[in-house]
Amino acid sequence: MPILDLSPGDQTVTVSGDTPLLEVYAALPAGLFPPFPPVELPGGVGGLVARGGFAQTFFFGAEVLGVTFRAPSGRVIRAGGRTVKNVQGYDLTRPFVGSFGRLGEALDVTLRLRPGPHARHVAAPGSLEALGPLSARFAWQDGEDVHLLHFGHAREVERALAVLLGAREVKEPLDLTARFPGGIGVGEGALRDRRFGWVNGGAAPPVPPLFARLAASL
Amino acid sequence: MPILDLSPGDQTVTVSGDTPLLEVYAALPAGLFPPFPPVELPGGVGGLVARGGFAQTFFFGAEVLGVTFRAPSGRVIRAGGRTVKNVQGYDLTRPFVGSFGRLGEALDVTLRLRPGPHARHVAAPGSLEALGPLSARFAWQDGEDVHLLHFGHAREVERALAVLLGAREVKEPLDLTARFPGGIGVGEGALRDRRFGWVNGGAAPPVPPLFARLAASL
Repeated sequence: MPILDLSPGDQTVTVSGDTPLLEVYAALPAGLFPPFPPVELPGGVGGLVARGGFAQTFFFGAEVLGVTFRAPSGRVIRAGGRTVKNVQGYDLTRPFVGSFGRLGEALDVTLRLRPGPHARHVAAPGSLEALGPLSARFAWQDGEDVHLLHFGHAREVERALAVLLGAREVKEPLDLTARFPGGIGVGEGALRDRRFGWVNGGAAPPVPPLFARLAASL
Repeated sequence: MPILDLSPGDQTVTVSGDTPLLEVYAALPAGLFPPFPPVELPGGVGGLVARGGFAQTFFFGAEVLGVTFRAPSGRVIRAGGRTVKNVQGYDLTRPFVGSFGRLGEALDVTLRLRPGPHARHVAAPGSLEALGPLSARFAWQDGEDVHLLHFGHAREVERALAVLLGAREVKEPLDLTARFPGGIGVGEGALRDRRFGWVNGGAAPPVPPLFARLAASL
């Protein structure tokens, strides 16, 4: 079972690291959203967390409440927790988020869910850079098109998407995995968000020496 | 200057680690709040972050966007960033939050600010445990009294505080430093939040061996 725990009351979901992103969407009740858009990418939730997310305009690390991972040493490390409240300190979650595999592999991940009575995904030819500051929760460029996705109250959704003129509705989840047969890594390519370009292959940003020491310590 | 940077637009503030908590309150424009109540405790913002916060009912780690700290080795480490968006990965902020000094001393801290047109702080005799789930952003027990503090829209503030029957208004910031001449640490005492009891002296929760290895690696 890739969905290990779903708590709409606590607004959290715990899934195995290999859970496809669209399976998380399929498992959630209406009106609750994970911290990623409905776009399938290689590596499932564990891969997404290791890359530090995709397309978010908010701070992704805050949405990852806990992670159990196998460190390069083989040790299994349980970091953070399953609820927002029970984190006591000595927390290794955040270095795992965006560690591009250098701290090992995610076995399970607990994500925060956010409520939104309305959601809308639109796309239109344009430039992500030229759009300036955005209130949409997700924004990415795919070739000539900019995609924006937001959830929340109806008026807030309209406001967040109004910056993209002449946009068409995107009604279905997207599956982009076929474009990344060798996995997904950073580099210059057609798919870009505000952090990185995303290309075929597993390239990671350069690892700071300090982080390499941390990885070796776990 | 203890306030190093204040950006109401980005809703962030960067302060030196030794900045007193009430100096942060004094520096903020009306309607913006830091992730702690207006209660002075020993150690300033750096100490608060090292202890993982005080009295919050939300996930404190998410509100600390960046920290520069001096590791036990003497190395100065810059973790996270000054904006919500620019965190790229390989981030050592979260293990510092709640590390009770084991990763060293905070030189500067960047905190997320949250907006709220109304704020109210009340207290009444009662039991924090007996109150059950709370929507107030801050809740603590001090002797026989429970304190609740919330900011937000007027109706939301009223709802969050209505659970505390017969409450009196607390109009002024509190200074509790005189009760902790030897610093503040965890233990059983008159002052408690939902994570810990807070007592005079610097006692920390037991350090997991993994975390001790991490500290030695930095």
